[in-house]
Amino acid sequence: MHIGLIGASGRLGTLVCENLVQQKLTFTKIAREDLQNIPSFMQLLQHVSESMIILDISLPVGTENICNIINNLEEKNLKQIKGLVIGTTGHNDRQKQLLLSTSQKIPICMVSNFSKGVYLFEEILKAKTSQGLTVTELARALGFDMAMTEIHHTLKKDAPSGTAITLAEAGKIPAKQISSVRVGKVVGDHSIHLSADSESLEIKHTAHARKLFAEGAIELCKNIYTQAPKPGFLRKEDFFIS
Amino acid sequence: MHIGLIGASGRLGTLVCENLVQQKLTFTKIAREDLQNIPSFMQLLQHVSESMIILDISLPVGTENICNIINNLEEKNLKQIKGLVIGTTGHNDRQKQLLLSTSQKIPICMVSNFSKGVYLFEEILKAKTSQGLTVTELARALGFDMAMTEIHHTLKKDAPSGTAITLAEAGKIPAKQISSVRVGKVVGDHSIHLSADSESLEIKHTAHARKLFAEGAIELCKNIYTQAPKPGFLRKEDFFIS
Amino acid sequence: MHIGLIGASGRLGTLVCENLVQQKLTFTKIAREDLQNIPSFMQLLQHVSESMIILDISLPVGTENICNIINNLEEKNLKQIKGLVIGTTGHNDRQKQLLLSTSQKIPICMVSNFSKGVYLFEEILKAKTSQGLTVTELARALGFDMAMTEIHHTLKKDAPSGTAITLAEAGKIPAKQISSVRVGKVVGDHSIHLSADSESLEIKHTAHARKLFAEGAIELCKNIYTQAPKPGFLRKEDFFIS
Amino acid sequence: MHIGLIGASGRLGTLVCENLVQQKLTFTKIAREDLQNIPSFMQLLQHVSESMIILDISLPVGTENICNIINNLEEKNLKQIKGLVIGTTGHNDRQKQLLLSTSQKIPICMVSNFSKGVYLFEEILKAKTSQGLTVTELARALGFDMAMTEIHHTLKKDAPSGTAITLAEAGKIPAKQISSVRVGKVVGDHSIHLSADSESLEIKHTAHARKLFAEGAIELCKNIYTQAPKPGFLRKEDFFIS
Repeated sequence: MHIGLIGASGRLGTLVCENLVQQKLTFTKIAREDLQNIPSFMQLLQHVSESMIILDISLPVGTENICNIINNLEEKNLKQIKGLVIGTTGHNDRQKQLLLSTSQKIPICMVSNFSKGVYLFEEILKAKTSQGLTVTELARALGFDMAMTEIHHTLKKDAPSGTAITLAEAGKIPAKQISSVRVGKVVGDHSIHLSADSESLEIKHTAHARKLFAEGAIELCKNIYTQAPKPGFLRKEDFFIS
Repeated sequence: MHIGLIGASGRLGTLVCENLVQQKLTFTKIAREDLQNIPSFMQLLQHVSESMIILDISLPVGTENICNIINNLEEKNLKQIKGLVIGTTGHNDRQKQLLLSTSQKIPICMVSNFSKGVYLFEEILKAKTSQGLTVTELARALGFDMAMTEIHHTLKKDAPSGTAITLAEAGKIPAKQISSVRVGKVVGDHSIHLSADSESLEIKHTAHARKLFAEGAIELCKNIYTQAPKPGFLRKEDFFIS
Repeated sequence: MHIGLIGASGRLGTLVCENLVQQKLTFTKIAREDLQNIPSFMQLLQHVSESMIILDISLPVGTENICNIINNLEEKNLKQIKGLVIGTTGHNDRQKQLLLSTSQKIPICMVSNFSKGVYLFEEILKAKTSQGLTVTELARALGFDMAMTEIHHTLKKDAPSGTAITLAEAGKIPAKQISSVRVGKVVGDHSIHLSADSESLEIKHTAHARKLFAEGAIELCKNIYTQAPKPGFLRKEDFFIS
Repeated sequence: MHIGLIGASGRLGTLVCENLVQQKLTFTKIAREDLQNIPSFMQLLQHVSESMIILDISLPVGTENICNIINNLEEKNLKQIKGLVIGTTGHNDRQKQLLLSTSQKIPICMVSNFSKGVYLFEEILKAKTSQGLTVTELARALGFDMAMTEIHHTLKKDAPSGTAITLAEAGKIPAKQISSVRVGKVVGDHSIHLSADSESLEIKHTAHARKLFAEGAIELCKNIYTQAPKPGFLRKEDFFIS
């Protein structure tokens, strides 16, 4: 497997490169100019003898560019691309439309957080209990009220975090019940507080180092490469485990 | 509904009585001598005009005595007893056999912890995620290792707690991975620690006051009374929610 | 010791009464009408043969009324009152002036939170480390940034809590770094998060049951009664420990 | 400042080297053979033109070797060594004796944990509160009982951890009140639980990444270098802050 990396110069991109080197995986950094037209992309593709997964952790415009390239590649070249993993969020309607058409050509997997623990957290909230209710529904039926706190470093600009929003959706927690704390160098803590009379439950995820997001992204690429799914939108649920 | 309470003088029993008074529910304390033979029990039953749920929070021998009584009651008297809720553990084989025969006469519900939060905790660990794995199985498949800590007051004699053992079974956590702490006046904390590379998840239940166990026991009795199930062993899952 | 209780009908007042009964301590509920003038108060005082501590957990106006009474009591009647403990906050300037003059007649102790753990928490933040810095100053000098989260039940109206404000002052945490969560039935959680590069410290207080505030108030009254200090404003630090 | 590093090939040593390179600090790895005799050490010293701090994170025998060298260096060569920082524990009596004689020649600082947060934690437990009691003594006087849990990865062999032992001493927590959990990849969690009736306090330190120990060690060397203390045993308290 060869990784084509869009967004290599970003914070996550730098960590992905470091990790790919450590794992001795071959990869190519795909710059904006490589995506300008088919010839530029073909020039880059020439140097890659293996089949590849493209990992896009840039910005929505990066997603747009790679989709435009893929939609216009010749069949024989398209065969070399085994999947597109997108860790970018905030695509506009045109870009979403473009993703839809591209998904008919290659498998696409969209993931807002590459941490396995956050994925597990989301699965917990939506998991089915013995009576058919989800965990979240059972908690409410038993009289538990729910709220969330999320803590990140002081340089984080958005609040609440994207992960908090995803988890709140899974747990049916209203937006006003999410509290954001910005302090020091915290990589990422997300806690759901469940409270009933005289008892409480807390489910808490702690990201200890940013590199786990890089490792998660690479493992997802590997799993998709190995399982070689057909074109279409992939459920991330099917590829988080090898 | 009338509650027949076996074990009224114990720590939990005292709280149950207080709570029954607060809720203005009628109840009868059933002492050991009331269970000695049918006539003694009938004498006690005479004063109860309503149909009743029997709540046994005594010791295994209490369970044995009430089962012997029930098995020998005349049909018309048996009708008055709508269910038997047992919060006692540690029954021997003969007592289990007795429970089996009694369950053919009245509905029996056996519960090791009357807290709704502990019940939710257990359900979480066994809930089915989107791919068909349980939460516990998914955690392991994603590379998370699991351990438990439980903290109780210094007067608690057994370690690990019965609840810890139940949760460890639900989470397939080996006994040697349960750590018990005995400190101060802690009512009951149970935490499951999930650890993978650079991230961790913790699920923690805190019992803030012992009265929640009394309230949970009474609510379970009410739910069984209302739903009026047929004789047999009841799944506690079906009666924790009203 | 006899307790004169102002504010007996409030939430905390009810618990104080329950606890006084449990501890077999004698007490008198002092109503608003008892404080209208000296004769009404004297009528009430007649029935109390012991010397007493007055515990005011009403509203600022209650504090005002008792101060007016005390300031106008005859010397021989004043002797019966060994101290005034005030758990009310939000006094206006006139009321503060009144407290000052009253403190020349009897010992007064003002406490915003009757929990021993919150008192310990505050002491921790202000304690002197080996080099002469306070804990808070040392934390900052070592590069730790600080923030606070406080969690209370959904019926609590003020945010942040008075306790959070007191702790934030002790820890020199700016008001905007306090996050308030209102969920379920939480009695009161206060956490200070200290974050530096790749490590964090958390100091967390949990109030498990409201009765601890009642117990703390009564114990403070007892300690003042036993130590019999001179008139003046007492430091709560001197009376939290018996 | 130049760092002379003993124990460069160990787990912590590797991280120290990485960090020294990142900080563009010059350093020399001192191997066992460099410490065999004065000529070997002088050969190594020749290549170092700056004055240096020696950081020993090897084993007790490494400490022994460097002490023997220092005790036998000529005065003019000794001047080049500004201090010895030792992160090794478990020295025997002979080695302790040797350290004592060496401390008459150069400043020596012995530290069992290079994390600033653990240092802060220890200082908290021993800090003086307003009445003259330490935090630990005040907690006990207020009725709080104390216990500790420490969690580390499954490859850690010793239990309880050295840090747990240090903190337990500072908090006067008996050894049997320390619970050790070994799970997954946890870098290092240490929690002290304080419990009293209906309330609890928890003080918890989390090490998120092993590199913080490397950074702490280097910063300590820098602070000693800058402050240039006289020979003798240094209090780590005086050099954790720049």
